[in-house]
Amino acid sequence: MVELGIEVRKGDSLFSVLMSMGHMFPSNCGGKGLCGRCRVRVLKGEDLLSPPSELERKILAERELKAGWRLACQAEALSNGLLLLEVPTLSYKLVVEGLERPVSLSPLIRSMVVEVPRPSLKDLTPDAERLLKVTGAVEIDFDTLRSLPILLRRRTGRFQVVLRKREVLNVRTEHGRLLGVAVDMGTTKLAAYLVDLSTGELLATASDVNPQIAFGEDIMSRVAFSMQKSEGVKMLQEALVEGVNKLITKACEEAGVKANNIYELVLVGNTMIHHSFLGISLNGLGVAPFVLATRNPVEIKARELGLLANRAAYVYLPPPIAGFVGSDALAASVASGLHETSEVGMLIDLGTNTEIILSDGDELWAASCASGPAFEGWKISCGSRAVEGAIDSVRVEPGTYEVAYSTIGGAKPIGICGSGLIDALAELYRAGVLDASGRMLEVPTPRCRRRDGVLEFVLAWSGETGTGRDVVLTQKDVRELQLAKAAVQAGAEVLMEKAGVRLGDLEVLYLAGAFGSSLNFLSARTIGLCPDVPFSKVRFLGNAAGAGARMMLKNVQLRREAEALARRVKFVELAVEKGFREKFLDALRFPPLRA
Amino acid sequence: MVELGIEVRKGDSLFSVLMSMGHMFPSNCGGKGLCGRCRVRVLKGEDLLSPPSELERKILAERELKAGWRLACQAEALSNGLLLLEVPTLSYKLVVEGLERPVSLSPLIRSMVVEVPRPSLKDLTPDAERLLKVTGAVEIDFDTLRSLPILLRRRTGRFQVVLRKREVLNVRTEHGRLLGVAVDMGTTKLAAYLVDLSTGELLATASDVNPQIAFGEDIMSRVAFSMQKSEGVKMLQEALVEGVNKLITKACEEAGVKANNIYELVLVGNTMIHHSFLGISLNGLGVAPFVLATRNPVEIKARELGLLANRAAYVYLPPPIAGFVGSDALAASVASGLHETSEVGMLIDLGTNTEIILSDGDELWAASCASGPAFEGWKISCGSRAVEGAIDSVRVEPGTYEVAYSTIGGAKPIGICGSGLIDALAELYRAGVLDASGRMLEVPTPRCRRRDGVLEFVLAWSGETGTGRDVVLTQKDVRELQLAKAAVQAGAEVLMEKAGVRLGDLEVLYLAGAFGSSLNFLSARTIGLCPDVPFSKVRFLGNAAGAGARMMLKNVQLRREAEALARRVKFVELAVEKGFREKFLDALRFPPLRA
Repeated sequence: MVELGIEVRKGDSLFSVLMSMGHMFPSNCGGKGLCGRCRVRVLKGEDLLSPPSELERKILAERELKAGWRLACQAEALSNGLLLLEVPTLSYKLVVEGLERPVSLSPLIRSMVVEVPRPSLKDLTPDAERLLKVTGAVEIDFDTLRSLPILLRRRTGRFQVVLRKREVLNVRTEHGRLLGVAVDMGTTKLAAYLVDLSTGELLATASDVNPQIAFGEDIMSRVAFSMQKSEGVKMLQEALVEGVNKLITKACEEAGVKANNIYELVLVGNTMIHHSFLGISLNGLGVAPFVLATRNPVEIKARELGLLANRAAYVYLPPPIAGFVGSDALAASVASGLHETSEVGMLIDLGTNTEIILSDGDELWAASCASGPAFEGWKISCGSRAVEGAIDSVRVEPGTYEVAYSTIGGAKPIGICGSGLIDALAELYRAGVLDASGRMLEVPTPRCRRRDGVLEFVLAWSGETGTGRDVVLTQKDVRELQLAKAAVQAGAEVLMEKAGVRLGDLEVLYLAGAFGSSLNFLSARTIGLCPDVPFSKVRFLGNAAGAGARMMLKNVQLRREAEALARRVKFVELAVEKGFREKFLDALRFPPLRA
Repeated sequence: MVELGIEVRKGDSLFSVLMSMGHMFPSNCGGKGLCGRCRVRVLKGEDLLSPPSELERKILAERELKAGWRLACQAEALSNGLLLLEVPTLSYKLVVEGLERPVSLSPLIRSMVVEVPRPSLKDLTPDAERLLKVTGAVEIDFDTLRSLPILLRRRTGRFQVVLRKREVLNVRTEHGRLLGVAVDMGTTKLAAYLVDLSTGELLATASDVNPQIAFGEDIMSRVAFSMQKSEGVKMLQEALVEGVNKLITKACEEAGVKANNIYELVLVGNTMIHHSFLGISLNGLGVAPFVLATRNPVEIKARELGLLANRAAYVYLPPPIAGFVGSDALAASVASGLHETSEVGMLIDLGTNTEIILSDGDELWAASCASGPAFEGWKISCGSRAVEGAIDSVRVEPGTYEVAYSTIGGAKPIGICGSGLIDALAELYRAGVLDASGRMLEVPTPRCRRRDGVLEFVLAWSGETGTGRDVVLTQKDVRELQLAKAAVQAGAEVLMEKAGVRLGDLEVLYLAGAFGSSLNFLSARTIGLCPDVPFSKVRFLGNAAGAGARMMLKNVQLRREAEALARRVKFVELAVEKGFREKFLDALRFPPLRA
């Protein structure tokens, strides 16, 4: 949070004042009071502003309104004066955490305090049986059994017994916490969530790059790597386990708890991630027809995979859906609740691989689009991941071609990340720098120039940047992004055709994934990346896969629902769908501009 | 086998002629035609001998009789002449292998040949599901699942699938054998049996010293070791696993097969061995009341213990019965069939720890006697394990005190093993060198002498021995052996009292264990180590624990029987039995000599 004094004049919108000062918000609605991402807190001068609008009352809680929170795009100055504001330094908390639907807390892990009777010459009942009798459990983790004779002889009296289903995981002489970890394993990024299983509270979040990236940027190059190298899968597995362990360590440190109290982990990821995490050969994913090794849920001891947790802890991996629709997409569906309602809805989880799930209110369809890593900033000349200094929103003034942008953390620009790229594409299209085919036109501004004969557009001059070099978007960058967006667009169209759902039928559009949730929907719609639905139908889920994983960690019933869902969803293999290729070629173009 | 020409005179017993030539048999009955251990084969001169007696016809099979086999103690020369005999070099095959009751072959491991359909763009069923469908199995070993995409893509056509229950253990492109291993893990000795699970054939046997002996000779010293050292149990476990792995390697080499084709192992042992093999703390066995950590059967992957076998192989450990009555005693009961019949019978498994199981024809009782390692030759001045050169039978001529003995393998004596010690004790008692209290008397022979004021008796002079030193039995040795035999004798007496079984009720006495099966029953009865029953009621089982383990490997129903038996047997804790101490003190004496 930053405290900021600003001067306003009657009629000013807080949003535009802050924008003009270089403060930009990761707004998804372009200042229309819909996305709630331009929150500021008014510390002094509240009476200078218009009262909270209806839209604000919808989005902000009563408690927040009382504390002075406003949406900058809705607050208008009623007279001239000075304001003291608290402005969030851009926080990607929502994106990383994802939105959870409220679920009841019913985890598999529970504990009880019991008195275990001591043996005597008259009662020679084995240790295990005495423990099982007082707990009502039917089995004991083998490693815990190994030390049971020591544990039970450590003292007399009461023990805390940690249970999962009907298995004793641990026997303790002093009380310990019951922790769980949910992990969303993305192709590029890992995110871990440390949860207190007794309260449901999210104790800490940690995220980092997926170390598998050393073996290939995208899914297919890692699959190829694993097939060429004899120990390839093992290397992928070790990298991933090490990456997850680092996040667990980080989250535990942040929360001040011990990893030894983690008794369950729920992990989701795409199919390559899922298989390689478990050490399963990727050969079925390497060549068409792309086939999973298994689509069963997996429930094994965390120690078998070398994960940092209690020695008796379990991992649960919900099932993948099909060749390239993983358990992350399944978890995102669970988080959205799409499978539960009779709403006609679409879920798009944008990323290196984009999964689309469509519900016609009854049945569900799924497809996987090879959108590639362009949205993550890879293969783009000035591309960047969504880190501090990355340009994350862009405005281009038609006519003057002047550029306004914001960066993550407000730092000097170092590159441009996914949401910035989508904005740039849409704004350049809208300003006439790009035509509908994606061709860059030579417009009268020094920003538009040729290098080695190829056109490029300067978004930020070297003097403004953190690197001392211009941040540009080249014609080649535009082509990469067109390929990516066309894959998603065509996928969505095929799926809708299969399901007999028309654009007008869509009641809700869920956008998930770190990238999907930070993009400006209006820009995405402008270039055709998102279906042409009104903004009011859009719901941003943030990291929905992570949210779904957390929900399954907290509520075991959701696992059964997810498993049923995985078998229910109809997977559409786009590669063999008639019409996909044509739709893809058509989708390379941008849709006609709205008036 | 040795070919041997001998001269006989009318009236000679073949047994005494061979004895006089230094050939002694590991006879259990003292030449009474009861034990069948003095077999010889007559190659030439058959007509010089008496026809096979009724006893011989009982013990030898028709086929054996036709091949010229006789019991040396029963064959008498009818006239003078020359015989050509085939005389077995002493083989302990029976002892190591143990006698199995015939059981039907119904192992858990089976294989089938199947055709697994290949995936297509129209059938994207995961690999695992396609395999399960054609095999009817419901799960796949996780390690096999890991390489399934590779295995199934290696070629088209038929695969050999190895199954256990409803789990796929392996998928092979060429046909492989189905092997199993049974292991009897004794305190002192390990014995492994390699079995072809398709035929039930015993392919090879291997045995060696239990490497745990480095951490203590007897059970209690190893328990104490494990409690003093933080990684104690782990060290015991590693030693044992290494020892078992060595035997598996040896047996596989002998049979010319690969350990990779071993899919199941059945292992039995006493409770210390059982717990330490599984890495379970021995703290419950260290102090009274002696309590097991668990008495559940254990069924886990062999790889979890680091055993040499197929990566998907299982180990099965039948349950121990109580504090010091292990799964070896249970396996011995299974081998004897004691639990199945309505016979009143007793099973004694003699060893460092001696287990006694008594059936009154309906209910079963068990006890454990701390007989100590004296019977294994430990703590005895010239004691030896049953290796080549160990004196294994002894005769002492009353009056002259002259000594005749045999050694294992016919080698020069290097010491005296268990059966020799029992013989020596009985013979010295019978010849009046020992009185009923075990006191050694100064009898008029240079063999009886004092060293450092203590009496000892020379069994073999230095000139005859393989070590160049006299082989003697000292007064202290006698005391050690008395303690050992008193523990067993008192245990048997308490158990009979508990069960209300009297000596005359006993219909059968099973003697099990390498030592129990090689001893001279009449000598053992003379000193009171075995109950005073007629020899005709005695059955020698050899390594009954090993035989029982093999039976459970071959027949899964026997495992359920064993598990039920373990819970049915009433364990009698001798330490708290009123009267045990008195009976023990009484049992230190030798019983009155028979006329």
